[in-house]
Amino acid sequence: MKTQVAIIGAGPSGLLLGQLLTKAGIDNIIIERQTPDYVLGRIRAGVLEQGMVDLLREAGVSERMDREGLVHDGFELAFDGRRERIDLKQLTGGKTVMIYGQTEVTRDLMAAREASGGKTFYGVTDAQLHDLKGESPHVTFTYNNEPVRLNCEYIAGCDGFHGVSRQSIPEGVLKEFERVYPFGWLGILADTPPVNEELIYANHPRGFALCSMRSPTRTRYYVQVASDEKVEDWSDQRFWDELKCRLPADTAEKLITGPSIEKSIAPLRSFVVEPMQYGNLFLVGDAAHIVPPTGAKGLNLAASDVSTLYNILVKVYREGRTELLENYSQVCLKRIWKAERFSWWMTSMLHKFPDTDNFSQRMQQTELDYFVGSEAGRRTIAENYVGLPYEPIE
Amino acid sequence: MKTQVAIIGAGPSGLLLGQLLTKAGIDNIIIERQTPDYVLGRIRAGVLEQGMVDLLREAGVSERMDREGLVHDGFELAFDGRRERIDLKQLTGGKTVMIYGQTEVTRDLMAAREASGGKTFYGVTDAQLHDLKGESPHVTFTYNNEPVRLNCEYIAGCDGFHGVSRQSIPEGVLKEFERVYPFGWLGILADTPPVNEELIYANHPRGFALCSMRSPTRTRYYVQVASDEKVEDWSDQRFWDELKCRLPADTAEKLITGPSIEKSIAPLRSFVVEPMQYGNLFLVGDAAHIVPPTGAKGLNLAASDVSTLYNILVKVYREGRTELLENYSQVCLKRIWKAERFSWWMTSMLHKFPDTDNFSQRMQQTELDYFVGSEAGRRTIAENYVGLPYEPIE
Repeated sequence: MKTQVAIIGAGPSGLLLGQLLTKAGIDNIIIERQTPDYVLGRIRAGVLEQGMVDLLREAGVSERMDREGLVHDGFELAFDGRRERIDLKQLTGGKTVMIYGQTEVTRDLMAAREASGGKTFYGVTDAQLHDLKGESPHVTFTYNNEPVRLNCEYIAGCDGFHGVSRQSIPEGVLKEFERVYPFGWLGILADTPPVNEELIYANHPRGFALCSMRSPTRTRYYVQVASDEKVEDWSDQRFWDELKCRLPADTAEKLITGPSIEKSIAPLRSFVVEPMQYGNLFLVGDAAHIVPPTGAKGLNLAASDVSTLYNILVKVYREGRTELLENYSQVCLKRIWKAERFSWWMTSMLHKFPDTDNFSQRMQQTELDYFVGSEAGRRTIAENYVGLPYEPIE
Repeated sequence: MKTQVAIIGAGPSGLLLGQLLTKAGIDNIIIERQTPDYVLGRIRAGVLEQGMVDLLREAGVSERMDREGLVHDGFELAFDGRRERIDLKQLTGGKTVMIYGQTEVTRDLMAAREASGGKTFYGVTDAQLHDLKGESPHVTFTYNNEPVRLNCEYIAGCDGFHGVSRQSIPEGVLKEFERVYPFGWLGILADTPPVNEELIYANHPRGFALCSMRSPTRTRYYVQVASDEKVEDWSDQRFWDELKCRLPADTAEKLITGPSIEKSIAPLRSFVVEPMQYGNLFLVGDAAHIVPPTGAKGLNLAASDVSTLYNILVKVYREGRTELLENYSQVCLKRIWKAERFSWWMTSMLHKFPDTDNFSQRMQQTELDYFVGSEAGRRTIAENYVGLPYEPIE
């Protein structure tokens, strides 16, 4: 079997890249270890940056998002009993974010791929990448108990942190940067109306909390928990009680609770590898970098990698500009490091860190106080939250 | 002996407070452990915020500063071989800083005090503060081998970190916040022309460096050194060689070296006590808080404490508003914590920290890259560097 671009992974990055390439007339095949239902079952991010929204529109998959998604002009920071709004639209000259779940994005992309006749192999096993630096890059895998060989020109590794793509790069090539935070997020999904029209990120002496949502009738709430907490120890009641504790009193009063649809604990980690490419393999999104969820950058960073790789591949196939491929990693990393910084900073500013001294605690409070109190400070938050501009490919 | 306000310490804070009070017709006496020459021999800060410049003008001691001081509209950050200017004037709507040594400020204040006939006792020993919460606050000390008792209404503790004032507050009253940094600054004073018209703060893999000055012919340079370094191990040559290493190549080339007039190592520390008052004693400047010198906030914070205490005392004596005294600490600390944050942040961003991982190092580089590359980021630096507004006393 043969294609121009082999895409490893049918999550939102792989599907979005496939959709953009297909629209540009570049042949591609996606392989995925899981079933479509498994992929759709993963509850993840829900805040899309302006740049990702624009990219989904460019890919022609924005129709439902533009109808059902919630445009948010701002969000709030709660601390010290106060709630302070970051007016994204006003502070960034008109930019906003879109509340639309990753699951919905994936569903729309799956439908678009089916409509376009793009090939996706679900449930493949034993995927291996070969000859990445040679003349005949190819992917082998097992599908329906049959061995398959997929010849290609380029491979896009869109298969996440645990995928085979990054692991296919020989030892010693990649430099790793990592920070593991000493806590996780316990998240709950519920069919209740949101406590506030916009997101609230709360710093509290008991720990961080986040009031988020997926729609006007479905909420997503989180509380910071110790790394070793077990989800079984958290009844719905215990979760709601803890969340209320961490919100300003007048906000807690308005919170409407209900049974959870989903409940899980996610660890927080910062991770980057350099470079993000090896021969004809290009790593995209979580395969190359992880951010803690504070600041909602994970899916959005994957989208900017997709945009970069797509724009380079278009110039490669249309204009023969293969030299641009060398720039992929460098172009991506410029934006990635800034998003890593913002995610690390938001995480540092909003969470309770075990074993810190009172000076550090006061610095955290003062950081919040200064940044929300200064127009320039609010602008630094806003311009990062809506997403720094995509790097141009020229 | 009797006065309205007893001032402990004849450094710039004590002298400035005395000068302002004298001008307002409030009687005050200063006592100082050292001789005037010793006080003038201490080489300290040299960058005055707009607010301190205005306060020195209000105190009527700005004539020589306005003639000889250098107004700086900006400063530079050097990192990664680049030099990036922070245009203070443009970013803050016209604010600037004044380069004028602490020694010169002190000299001008001493002359003004002599001219006004204000009483200062130099070389006192055994100073003790009494009855701080009672009806008869007073200070006892030995002067010319004679015991002296100075009755007063209020005591201003302007006697620095090691002074008697803070130590006179009973144990358990003050809450301390402290951060000791694992390095110091080795500073040199030389009669050489500055390498650049404006200050350069340099982040370098070998450590931080600062190119500062006192006048167009006198320079002040610093390099970060380990906490246990001895000044005897640093010949002038070694200092200049190290400094050149840490500057961008084209800057190092232009550096003019010369024999040092002064050379010393200072530790870096952040320190705050809360509250800054006890009964009729009010702590001012270093007696209550220390900042690391990165960001040049130490003397400037002392000046804003002086301004707060002076403005409260004027309202107490003229309008009988003794209730304002209760606010002193709270008003001061609002501004102090923000300056502590800025000093801590500048220190964290610009120094080499021993034993940090590569993620932290990259965050430091990205922090610099983001803040100088964003107009909002540059504004946050500029508005803090010129000094946040003084809190009004109403």
